[in-house]
Amino acid sequence: MATARRTRLRPEERRNQLVALGVATLADRPLAEVTVEEIAAEAGVSTGLVYYYFGSKNGLHHEIVRRARDSMLHASEPQPELPPSDRLVSTLTRLVAYVREHGPTFYSLVRGAASGDEEVRAVIEDARREQTERALAVLLELGVPETELLRIAVRSWVALAEQALVDGALNSDLDDAMLVGYLERSLGGVVAAVVPGASEALFGVPSAL
Amino acid sequence: MATARRTRLRPEERRNQLVALGVATLADRPLAEVTVEEIAAEAGVSTGLVYYYFGSKNGLHHEIVRRARDSMLHASEPQPELPPSDRLVSTLTRLVAYVREHGPTFYSLVRGAASGDEEVRAVIEDARREQTERALAVLLELGVPETELLRIAVRSWVALAEQALVDGALNSDLDDAMLVGYLERSLGGVVAAVVPGASEALFGVPSAL
Repeated sequence: MATARRTRLRPEERRNQLVALGVATLADRPLAEVTVEEIAAEAGVSTGLVYYYFGSKNGLHHEIVRRARDSMLHASEPQPELPPSDRLVSTLTRLVAYVREHGPTFYSLVRGAASGDEEVRAVIEDARREQTERALAVLLELGVPETELLRIAVRSWVALAEQALVDGALNSDLDDAMLVGYLERSLGGVVAAVVPGASEALFGVPSAL
Repeated sequence: MATARRTRLRPEERRNQLVALGVATLADRPLAEVTVEEIAAEAGVSTGLVYYYFGSKNGLHHEIVRRARDSMLHASEPQPELPPSDRLVSTLTRLVAYVREHGPTFYSLVRGAASGDEEVRAVIEDARREQTERALAVLLELGVPETELLRIAVRSWVALAEQALVDGALNSDLDDAMLVGYLERSLGGVVAAVVPGASEALFGVPSAL
């Protein structure tokens, strides 16, 4: 703390540091309980400075949740050089690893959807939309026809994945590979539920149902 | 309103009426915005009487969300006399019909999971647990082996179903039968993702993935 107090940072660095401290705090308590006072104390700066950067506690919360969302999306960023099925597995593998390593951050995103704060919810809805687009891109590239039901189905699979990550990666010690396999195959199952016969044609395996 | 004002109800009837008015109010605004004042005004009673029954605004909210949850669970109650697969379809068919008819009530349950109120969240988590147990019962009866992954998978399918109901039954005019079919087949897909080969053996169709 003494060090932090003595450290002079440029505005952008200071701002980054405050947000990073906020994200780290999620390990101990939910976003809604993160206060300007504790972040100021941890950084060794005045509460006034925190208000100067973020305007209000809500402003601070918005930056924290945006940073948490971006770190999750970044960790699971699709690798465009991979063929679609491998890209999906690679994304899911890194997502499971991220959740295992940064459980509280991920959980704060899940729980943040439960925020009374409209903007926090919007940031998280944004992450879900991005994950939906990523999965959809894989399927379209594999030749699955784009329909209204397919979009609804893929978005519903993102909800499935989120819940399976909470229960499988945070609240149990289920094997990583087993969880990745389940997430991958469940997307196949969802596609097969929309387009009977699709999974055989697309994933080289017999169709579901 | 004049009629309501003149009506004398017995305590249990009055309490029921106030909760029912609260549930009806969900058509216009989220649970968190339902006030003691408006429920009292609509029932033509004093706010004091509402506080007498529910203790506080939160107490009123808890009863409203419990009633909403119970009505959803009741509407989709499994029919034990049906064989498991038919029972699943019957449950899903009534669930879709319920969401179409009582959209705001269902949405308040989904959004209520986003409540800052611990007890509201617990009531809703309870409904999800019940739906998980119902789906799991169908699968176990069909002979699917109960494993940790199966429980995680079925709970994640409940999250999928909730999201698909919001997007398919509330926010689009997707055909009911198409949505029911998707929900049914997606559960099959999820099972196949957990137990390769299971859907053929259990649902009489080729296995997914």
